[in-house]
Amino acid sequence: MKRTSFAHWPCSIARTMDVLGDWWTPLVLREAFYGMRRFDEFQRELGIARNTLADRLRRLVAEGLLEKRPYQHDPVRYDYVLTEKGRDFFGVLAAMVRWGDRWLAGEDGPPIALHHDRCGHDSHAEVVCAACREPLRAEDTSPRMGPGYPERLRRRPGLGDRFSGP
Amino acid sequence: MKRTSFAHWPCSIARTMDVLGDWWTPLVLREAFYGMRRFDEFQRELGIARNTLADRLRRLVAEGLLEKRPYQHDPVRYDYVLTEKGRDFFGVLAAMVRWGDRWLAGEDGPPIALHHDRCGHDSHAEVVCAACREPLRAEDTSPRMGPGYPERLRRRPGLGDRFSGP
Repeated sequence: MKRTSFAHWPCSIARTMDVLGDWWTPLVLREAFYGMRRFDEFQRELGIARNTLADRLRRLVAEGLLEKRPYQHDPVRYDYVLTEKGRDFFGVLAAMVRWGDRWLAGEDGPPIALHHDRCGHDSHAEVVCAACREPLRAEDTSPRMGPGYPERLRRRPGLGDRFSGP
Repeated sequence: MKRTSFAHWPCSIARTMDVLGDWWTPLVLREAFYGMRRFDEFQRELGIARNTLADRLRRLVAEGLLEKRPYQHDPVRYDYVLTEKGRDFFGVLAAMVRWGDRWLAGEDGPPIALHHDRCGHDSHAEVVCAACREPLRAEDTSPRMGPGYPERLRRRPGLGDRFSGP
């Protein structure tokens, strides 16, 4: 069954979810952040079916989050290495980890601690406003139409419920 | 086909993805942050099949991100309202938006601008270290076993590849 494609929605959440594709993709990225590079390492660490893993790696390469680098010839074998676009996804995973640690970890506490080498603390992610550096909470923000909001949707009825302000 | 359940993995990314369940869930939450509360509003805004929407709303209520509040009796009808746990998910969505705006928006630019009412700027999310408030980048962090890391996995061979440091 072909799933709905969100790639062309005027929404960066929909587009990001379209890239993720399914539950496995963030976990493949997690392994890449743990330093895994080889097909067999991903496979062993995740216990994922080989065809599913092959598909997710192909997609992450096609979307530009991983790149293939040959480490052996004849037969050729590849490392899968995070690109700048892939490395930049760390913030999304770190925000997920923080939410999961807070709401899903139960009494045992977080399974993993994130040590921040630069400041030397066991820490966690916090999502802040890039302008004032205060924590970004939904109730303090208002969505507005951005430059990429499609012309054809700008005069849709009821849009005032969605976007307030100038 | 029953998908793999990630709910019991010792990983907050896996657990969070298990709650999300599929691509629609973050978009249902997005609509809740836009102020939508009623079944028909979610349905109209997302163009989602009614049975799919009913399933996602049920799951978000079961997981404690939304709560049902009756707004009408006989027949009873409900608003779906974000709980504290649901509102706290805003940071994850905001981090996704930032990544999507940066890497998937193309030349048109971001479809939506996030206005931060508290500081008065059109802004975006930034993911920082909660301890030192500097941007959190993968290369500056080291994962360590946390209090909730399962005893049975602590002596698994090869774990040194994954966790460095004390």
